[in-house]
Amino acid sequence: MHDSVPTPGASDRPLILLSNDDGIDARGIAALASALDGLGELAVVAPFEEQSAVGHAITVRDPMRVHAWPFEGVDGPLWARAVTGTPADCVKIACQRLLPRMPDLVVSGINHGPNTAVNVLYSGTVSAATEACILGVPSIAVSHGDWRPEDFEAAGIAARRVAEHVLERGLPPGVLLNVNVPGGSPDDIAGYQVTRQARARWEEEFEERLDPMNRPYYWLGGRFIDLDEGADTDLHAMREGYVSVTPLQIDLTAYAHLDDLAAWEL
Amino acid sequence: MHDSVPTPGASDRPLILLSNDDGIDARGIAALASALDGLGELAVVAPFEEQSAVGHAITVRDPMRVHAWPFEGVDGPLWARAVTGTPADCVKIACQRLLPRMPDLVVSGINHGPNTAVNVLYSGTVSAATEACILGVPSIAVSHGDWRPEDFEAAGIAARRVAEHVLERGLPPGVLLNVNVPGGSPDDIAGYQVTRQARARWEEEFEERLDPMNRPYYWLGGRFIDLDEGADTDLHAMREGYVSVTPLQIDLTAYAHLDDLAAWEL
Repeated sequence: MHDSVPTPGASDRPLILLSNDDGIDARGIAALASALDGLGELAVVAPFEEQSAVGHAITVRDPMRVHAWPFEGVDGPLWARAVTGTPADCVKIACQRLLPRMPDLVVSGINHGPNTAVNVLYSGTVSAATEACILGVPSIAVSHGDWRPEDFEAAGIAARRVAEHVLERGLPPGVLLNVNVPGGSPDDIAGYQVTRQARARWEEEFEERLDPMNRPYYWLGGRFIDLDEGADTDLHAMREGYVSVTPLQIDLTAYAHLDDLAAWEL
Repeated sequence: MHDSVPTPGASDRPLILLSNDDGIDARGIAALASALDGLGELAVVAPFEEQSAVGHAITVRDPMRVHAWPFEGVDGPLWARAVTGTPADCVKIACQRLLPRMPDLVVSGINHGPNTAVNVLYSGTVSAATEACILGVPSIAVSHGDWRPEDFEAAGIAARRVAEHVLERGLPPGVLLNVNVPGGSPDDIAGYQVTRQARARWEEEFEERLDPMNRPYYWLGGRFIDLDEGADTDLHAMREGYVSVTPLQIDLTAYAHLDDLAAWEL
């Protein structure tokens, strides 16, 4: 029975929590669990349903359900729970209710599709790692450059490599890592680059359609525009075939603008 | 008929878009419209339903509806639309589909309750302003320190004052303002302070209950913990009776950590 797998966290091995935003049955989180096999005790707490583009949402008006879930690891079933909530909810309830202690590391992903530039603000994958960071747990978000990846081997290798470094070195308070892996096989990876978030935006087009009652409704669509010519951005690294590793922070203060604003004499 | 109010944006007066996360029928956004009366042409595009704690979510898997909405301004009905989506959706569809041109300013609020410290990451109010910032429009999020404010007079005065300054001076690209106003009457306001986001976190408690079928479900609860002793934070300013004005940025890169990370030699 999958709900009889013992809760991890009792040993002195690193306790590693996995989550994502594509849902607990997505191929990316299965690939992540395989890639991290042997690094520590793995626990999986992920959304029951797909939660893409939920940003850093949390569930405050509805109760949540937690379901024991069959999740096959490399050496047998892993302890896994599906939560009827967002990625941030999953990390909160895992760390503060379901697990016997705080994990040593949270890894979110492997997302189906990149989370670069301004998309980090919309990303549920990043949000799970952000929530861990808020709770004081080192964390990594891992995303695959392809929206429909054929295989996760290269992304898995990158996830494991970055995870090993973080387990060994830790991360400063308030900082998490956002990892984006280009498509292709492991041999296609040019290396690793530490990057900054590119300036970019979406040019949205809202397509209007009419329902059978002749009332309009709108679908969000659009195209992504890179506004940044820097060679040190996440987008640039991905285009050149590098794994992009961006340190992100949860303090959003625009420190460079504090003095200007004080001069306004509000 | 409220759906016959002409769409604003045809004159050369400033076009000011109002949104929020408490929903289009919340008292806070009505108070905001009153407070900004005369500063320009006002347009209201806000969620059909309450959207608190949605973070920077956008609606990508479902279509959206847009409803003409009766919204009384100081001098008669305002052009207003209720959108079946999140605050970020409202700003996107207003700027890129519903209005004839990009607004000169977006003001989000007045939120019922503060959006300070790490709560900016969860806040739908802040998210509407963030989305405007991504689209290149100067923006302000305004929140009231009380969860059940009796009146919005002080918050309205602060919103107008900050809006006037932003219309006159603009904001740097990628920067928005997060304004929090303490409870009390206008006479109780000690002044304005430019602040940074305080370090703080929630200590969550998930309350487990049993449904009539004896299956557990969980409610998110908890208490907020200020971890920051600085006198320059949003939380400190509010406690001292000041309006807190925090510049926030949409570039989340932890620049201070780039060199350390490069030294990891991944």
